[in-house]
Parts: sequence; structure tokens; C-alpha cells
Amino acid sequence: MSFFHQISSRSQSLNSLLCVGLDPHLAELNLPESSTEEQRCEAAYDFCKRIIEATADHAVAYKPNAAFFEALGARLGCATLKRVVDSIPDGIPVLLDVKRGDIGSTAAAYAEACYDETDGIGAHGVTLSPLMGWDSVKPFVTGNYADKGAFVLCKTSNPGSNDLLALSTESGGALFEKIAGLANEWSAKAASESPSSSSEPRLGLVVGATDPSALDAARRAAGQDVWILAPGVGAQGGDLDAACAAGLNDHGSGMLIPVSRGISRSPDPAAEAIKLKEGINSAREAVVRRRKDEEGESQAIESYQRDFLEFALDEGVLKFGSFVLKSGRTSPYFFNAGLFFEWQCASQAGEKLRCGHNG
Amino acid sequence: MSFFHQISSRSQSLNSLLCVGLDPHLAELNLPESSTEEQRCEAAYDFCKRIIEATADHAVAYKPNAAFFEALGARLGCATLKRVVDSIPDGIPVLLDVKRGDIGSTAAAYAEACYDETDGIGAHGVTLSPLMGWDSVKPFVTGNYADKGAFVLCKTSNPGSNDLLALSTESGGALFEKIAGLANEWSAKAASESPSSSSEPRLGLVVGATDPSALDAARRAAGQDVWILAPGVGAQGGDLDAACAAGLNDHGSGMLIPVSRGISRSPDPAAEAIKLKEGINSAREAVVRRRKDEEGESQAIESYQRDFLEFALDEGVLKFGSFVLKSGRTSPYFFNAGLFFEWQCASQAGEKLRCGHNG
Repeated sequence: MSFFHQISSRSQSLNSLLCVGLDPHLAELNLPESSTEEQRCEAAYDFCKRIIEATADHAVAYKPNAAFFEALGARLGCATLKRVVDSIPDGIPVLLDVKRGDIGSTAAAYAEACYDETDGIGAHGVTLSPLMGWDSVKPFVTGNYADKGAFVLCKTSNPGSNDLLALSTESGGALFEKIAGLANEWSAKAASESPSSSSEPRLGLVVGATDPSALDAARRAAGQDVWILAPGVGAQGGDLDAACAAGLNDHGSGMLIPVSRGISRSPDPAAEAIKLKEGINSAREAVVRRRKDEEGESQAIESYQRDFLEFALDEGVLKFGSFVLKSGRTSPYFFNAGLFFEWQCASQAGEKLRCGHNG
Repeated sequence: MSFFHQISSRSQSLNSLLCVGLDPHLAELNLPESSTEEQRCEAAYDFCKRIIEATADHAVAYKPNAAFFEALGARLGCATLKRVVDSIPDGIPVLLDVKRGDIGSTAAAYAEACYDETDGIGAHGVTLSPLMGWDSVKPFVTGNYADKGAFVLCKTSNPGSNDLLALSTESGGALFEKIAGLANEWSAKAASESPSSSSEPRLGLVVGATDPSALDAARRAAGQDVWILAPGVGAQGGDLDAACAAGLNDHGSGMLIPVSRGISRSPDPAAEAIKLKEGINSAREAVVRRRKDEEGESQAIESYQRDFLEFALDEGVLKFGSFVLKSGRTSPYFFNAGLFFEWQCASQAGEKLRCGHNG
């Protein structure tokens, strides 16, 4: 099953958009300053295992961030990351937050390091930087890794994201909108060069929940089928309702909300995960209801329009069926305006419309 | 000593711009497919050690690429990278090619992983992605790491570098030129927020040797003092002479040429390093000679201009000294055109100029 198909089906079966971050910040491990690398790694493993056990029924995916494991030490940090990933129950997708980006042959080495199940980390998907272009992304989503998936950085949640990502391009739109469009092109390229087990897009987008207008623009640029990873709710101050309103697709889905410190710092991570999941689901429901209402409103017809249609049907001006038009095309309806031949009939039709417009 | 000061002084004392890449590609290690992680790591260590021993007298710096070590395996790959870095003789700067880029707290964890001498890799400088902005770069060049230095990706050597880095921005210039300018601003910010042992810029640029016009534009945008790392000579087809002509500063320096496969695949890496160093130095000398010639040409004055100046000095029209002008400013010279009061004098002056222009 492809990474994004895994994400979609698990999200649906759990009714959840929660993605749980595994970030063993040294500061959160409460270790004495003189601790050894072995002690740090053991504490980080326990920290992650506790979170995984508490949240496995509510997390669509786990997102370990490579940085916090690498910082544990060069001898054992990555081995600890692998141990943590191995401890995640089968069937839960692992999104490795690495934000790598390098030239083709180097990117291929990173892909192996992230995905290989025997000696690598064994992740199912990754986050990537698109800065160096398609050939730096390709090795992560094609060939042996056609069933993997990647979220590319689009508009990040940090203050510095405006330095480059929000820059206006000469062809119109901000750089991050350009990235959203490119990611779709790259997904299509990957699919045509290297078919996978599903037809879902091969690439998603990282768009910070701290910037709802960017989420809205990215969703428009990416379309309905693309998954958006929207960090920044909680510690970074992103507003959940605004982010959902801007970033969800029309089914109230297509968005993963990663939470790390919000869960790890809670005295009861399980209860916190449920609370977060339900909070997100309330926001989703409100968005779907609002969009349905808006759609209903735009579809409702005024009573004078209904009167006119009934009159047209009564007089045989409007007929449903199968009609071959003069152009040769077949139409499921035929509106014969020629039947307004009598003054009285045309006058009545005009009356119906006039009343509507004036009343 | 700061990273870029280390680079400058070692470059001067060795008379070299060669940076030796340490990329233990699995394919180059000639191992059977069934090799264990231990065997791969041992082979990678030997591969790097052999290159280091052969080139230590000619390499300004070593540039291990993290990807090829991570790909060796999660248990021992990074430990092997640390072992390799530890084996590099003291006094040779180690530039860790990691291209990291993440939000502030995560970037701080990566900085620790890269720089820490006890449990981290122990590098002196890194390569970074600027995509997420200043706060993603800051932890690598400020605070405890004010003496470290980073090369930020500006215009990379791969085909995909045009997808984003060459895009035109609305304010004029390509995105990579914007990055070159930002890197200078960030260097200044780092220096003011967090003083270091030297006043050299805290950030350099990665600009592919495969794109001499980008090198030229980046050098203009960055100024004379910034170091440029210019990969792509050799395996990727970059032309050394063109790259040097475009990227060197006016002292024939300010540029590091990293070579990996060009050396590792040679049957005699020591001889190859010397050949590369000398090839680069020939290209440097040609550039410096050409620039001096051009400067000489632009500074030379025509003989009629010299005649006119001598005449003006003889007649007292032009005087050197200290003169207070009507504006109140003090000038080191005074050109008193009012002294052309006699017909003969003005006529002679005109004659001097006329002859020059016509002859």
C-alpha cells in the first residue's frame, strides 16, 4: 500500500487527523548534565515509547524528527531512532521528519538511509526540502521507493519562512505557491516514470498552521487530493479552527495536524491525544457544515425562478429526455423558446419573471 | 580561530583552493552484496582514511558528506563519520556537508549533532539550506557556535537547481541572487548578535562550478570577502577555468573547489590531489594576470591627457595641497579654470585637448 493511501485509510478508520511527533528534546528528558550518551539514548527511547503506547489508537502516523536523535550523539543517536521506529506497531505509518535535499546521487543515499528496513531507519515517508529541484526529490518517490511518499516544505511555520518562501515571483504568486504547483507536477512525473500500487499523489506539502492564508492558497494551488502537513498548532501558536477552515479539502480531510510538545509535556498523553483528536474533529465538522451550507445557499433557487420553470414545463417549453440538437449533439433537455408564440403565453412568461425581479 | 579564518589562512599557507570530499559511495567500496553493516562501515573508514593520508598536505579542508555515512546503516553510519572526522589531522578544517534546514529549536539540535566535539561529529563548519530563513541558520553561527561557519546553498550544481533557485523574483534578480544578498545580511546579524574571534563573514555560499554566469552574479552580490564553495568540477562537468574566472575574488582567492570522485577513483590519490591543486593554481594565476592587465588598461592615460595635465600644472591651473572650497569642504586639489584668462593660454589648452582627440 502506498504511503499516502496508508495515511488516507488509517485516517478514515480512526476518524482522526492527528499525527504524533516524537521529538526527544534533551531539555525534556530531565537528565543530569553529566549524563552519558548511553543514558541519553535510553531516556529518549523510553520517552518515545511512553508516547507511542499512550497514543497508538489515535495517531494516524508518527513523526520522529531526526534532529533530536542525531543530537543525542553520533555513536548511538540514529540507532536509537531506528529502535524507536521498530517499536511502532505495524500498520501505523512512520513519517520521518528529515527535510533532506541534495543532488541526485546523494539524495539516493539519504533515501536508502531513511527507508531501508534492514539497516536503515525503516520509515514509510519523509519530509523534504524542494530547494534544489526535482532531481533532489525523485529518489525518494520513484524506483524501489515508488510506494513511499514525501511532504515537501511549502510554507513553514517559523518566523524566517517569509525570508524566501513568501517572496513574490516575477510570474506572479509567492514562491510557496510555485512550490505547491511544482509538487503536483513532480507527483505526476513520479507516477508516469515509476508506477506504484495506488494512484494517489506521491507528494504532499508542509504548510504551517500559523499562516491560514498560506494554507488556503496552498490548498487552492494543490487541489483536493493532496495531503497537507500543518505543524504549528499549540506550542507555535497556530489557531486550529482557522487552520482547518483554510487547509481542509471539501471532505473535511487531506490534512495532518502534527503535535509534539502538546502531548509529550502533558501529564496524561493518552487523554491529551484523545482531546486533540476530538478538538480537531469538532473543527472539521464545523468546516464541513459551513461549506455544505454555503453550497446549499448557492444551489437554492428563488420562488419566482421555480414558478417560471413550472410554467415552462406546463406549457411544454422545457422538456427532459434525449434530444438531437441542430449541432448534432445529444442533449438531456430541450428548451423550445419558439413555443412562446402566442402573445398571452409570452406575456405570462414575462409576468412570472417580472414579479420575481420586482418582488 | 573562526572557521573562515582557518580556511583563509590554511589556503594561503598551502597555496591551495582544493577541498577534498569524503563520499564513501557504497558502489565505490567494492563490497559483496551480502556485506554486513560492520563490513560496510569498516570499508568506508578505510576508504576515507586512505584519501586523507594521501591528500593532507594539499587539502585546505575535508568535506565529508553525511548522506553516504547515514546510508551505511543507522546503527554504525554516523559513528563511522565521527571516527573519520576524528582521524583528520588537527589544524585541517572539517566542513560537514549536511544541507540541514529546520525551525529554530530543531536547527539548534542539528547544530549540536554537527559540532559537538565529545559526542557529536566535531565539524568546524557545515553546509545549510537557506529555504526556511534566518532562524533556521542562526543556531549554526551564533552563541556557542559563533566561531563556526556555514556555506548556504545559493545556486547548486545539479540540473534541478533551475526549478526554484533560478526563478526571477518580482523585485528583480533570480532567487539565488536574493539568497547571496540575504547571506551577507545574516552574516552581519550574526556578528552583531554574537561576536566571534574574527571579523570575517560568518556565511559563505554554495554555487555550482557548472554555472559560471551564476558564479559571476553570486560573486558580485556577495562581494570580495565571502568564500564560495563551487562543486561540480570533474564528475559533473564544470569547467575549471570558466569557474575560476567567474568566481574568484580580485586576489585570486575566496573560492574552494571540492573534488570527491576525481580523487577517490584515481589509482594515485596523492598525485591526483597535487595535479588538481596545480591545475587550480594555473587557472587562478591566469585570472589574476588577466584582471591586472584589464585594470592596468583602464588606469593608463593617453599621452594627450598627460600633456594637458602637465600644462595645467605648469600654468598653476591645477594645484595640490589643502584648499577650503566655497562650499566649506576641504579639498586636496584645486582646479582654477578662471586662470585660463588669457586667450593664448586658453587657446593652448584647447590645442592640447584637440590634438589628443583627433590624433
